[in-house]
Amino acid sequence: MLPIKPEQDIDLLVAELLKGRRGALAKALRLIDDEPVLGRQIAFKLHDGGQGAKILGITGNPGAGKSTVVDTLIAHCRSIGKTVAVLAIDPSSPFSGGAILGDRIRMNRHTLDDGVYIRSLATRGNLGGLSRSTFDSVRVLDAAGYDVILVETVGIGQDEVDIVRLADTTVLVMVPGMGDDIQAIKAGILEIADIFLINKADRDGVPDLERSLHTMLSLAPNPSSWEPQILKSVATQGEGIAELWASIGEHSDYLKSEEGADIRRQRAFEIFERLLDALLIEKGRERLSFDLDEMRQKFLREDLNPYAEIYNLAQTY
Amino acid sequence: MLPIKPEQDIDLLVAELLKGRRGALAKALRLIDDEPVLGRQIAFKLHDGGQGAKILGITGNPGAGKSTVVDTLIAHCRSIGKTVAVLAIDPSSPFSGGAILGDRIRMNRHTLDDGVYIRSLATRGNLGGLSRSTFDSVRVLDAAGYDVILVETVGIGQDEVDIVRLADTTVLVMVPGMGDDIQAIKAGILEIADIFLINKADRDGVPDLERSLHTMLSLAPNPSSWEPQILKSVATQGEGIAELWASIGEHSDYLKSEEGADIRRQRAFEIFERLLDALLIEKGRERLSFDLDEMRQKFLREDLNPYAEIYNLAQTY
Repeated sequence: MLPIKPEQDIDLLVAELLKGRRGALAKALRLIDDEPVLGRQIAFKLHDGGQGAKILGITGNPGAGKSTVVDTLIAHCRSIGKTVAVLAIDPSSPFSGGAILGDRIRMNRHTLDDGVYIRSLATRGNLGGLSRSTFDSVRVLDAAGYDVILVETVGIGQDEVDIVRLADTTVLVMVPGMGDDIQAIKAGILEIADIFLINKADRDGVPDLERSLHTMLSLAPNPSSWEPQILKSVATQGEGIAELWASIGEHSDYLKSEEGADIRRQRAFEIFERLLDALLIEKGRERLSFDLDEMRQKFLREDLNPYAEIYNLAQTY
Repeated sequence: MLPIKPEQDIDLLVAELLKGRRGALAKALRLIDDEPVLGRQIAFKLHDGGQGAKILGITGNPGAGKSTVVDTLIAHCRSIGKTVAVLAIDPSSPFSGGAILGDRIRMNRHTLDDGVYIRSLATRGNLGGLSRSTFDSVRVLDAAGYDVILVETVGIGQDEVDIVRLADTTVLVMVPGMGDDIQAIKAGILEIADIFLINKADRDGVPDLERSLHTMLSLAPNPSSWEPQILKSVATQGEGIAELWASIGEHSDYLKSEEGADIRRQRAFEIFERLLDALLIEKGRERLSFDLDEMRQKFLREDLNPYAEIYNLAQTY
């Protein structure tokens, strides 16, 4: 295939993608990472090309065992004939690549399986860049026909909360005895979790964590009619994963039901809002014919006041 | 004062603010939270009105004792005659307010001190909203004449990394024996920390954590000539806080020096980049005369595909 630039190449790529060609998938995902504007064009062309994948967000503090949960969830999905794509969101610096890769190694047993596709996304550093590329990548994986798309984050910060909001169902992985009970609540994650998974449930402190969760949930003004589930697992042993999958299925059914309409629509609007911001930034830069690289050079040559520069720019806009 | 709407009221507010009137400060910060477009106007008018405050980012995982560090740092600054403003960034859900407030209570001993101003900022939920209001709030506090502005985050996610990047000096608070050594690295925070503070240093595991940090730092391709400092504290006892303040001072001097020019300018550009995105979103919405509330209503009435809606909008843009 020729280098992707002209319109017809994008069309060709999209056509190949919709046929499920792996080469086209890899190329599309790479474009989204490396050339966001072209990547956005691909995602646009796929705006109604979704195959209805189940999109799952897997989040939780580092050390909660998310990667192992994802790994065993992949194995479970494969055992019931579902294809799976994983997007691992790594807000990591270049030199921490090793630590992240270590986690990925466990999943390598799936790399020879054509029904599994695993990809890491690193942050671009700029505001919302990761959200945008995650959204576009999920579009592409959906179009490529994967039955299940797992979006796994490395930690739980606000940006990661934003990211998992694109998921149909979000699983918050916790561990007992780590002070996670209160800390997770601080991170404001309670609102977005549809399922709480107490992993490493063979450790001490499970009843305490369960009690805290129940208390918090009873105090929470739950805006939906979905009662968040609290489950337990020992992912390293594969324990609790079938139950997790069943609970995910229940939540999917709820979302599709008349009862789940408010939540379903609210989430659709939130996705729209995020896509809108991305569109406005992109179009704004085009319109300004603004050369950010040139501006960067100017900033690096002399001491400039960024607030004054923006003020000046706003006057001419 | 009349309700703030017309241009002259903003001018009046800014004038009062520059005189250091507390009422004007509170009003300006409230406007930034509640009416971002007006808030942005205020920040714009202050684009060269900074008084040269020292802006410090205090970040770290929940439970590391950041609030106590901040509290003792306030006391230290006051003891040497510096005025202090604190912006506590709470990416919390409405019903977790209690937990956050609990942390704030410790700082209440400062509330009767005119030289201290403490304010919490909650997330707006939308992409980058918190970054924007933090940037604007820091502008306002700087114009109001505070000597030191502490920006404290509740956790360390990508969005919080974005926020602390506006600081001149960033302190990463860690605790020994919590698996923080590796986990913090995963969160990709190493790159932004100028000072690592091992708090609760009376606990076990300090040498391990120090060793991990030294190893990581020796492996890291440090783009600046600043050697990140590793300090220890027991903030509850006030131990190590004077040393922290001295180290912050050294970093300030470095940033102002010829040697620190590259880093100083790089950071100025990063702030510019974030302000640019915010400007483009704001101007884009004006230009589209886009009513987001109306769109929300439409989304809540029927099942819409957000990707298709954005696609349609992009065609007309």
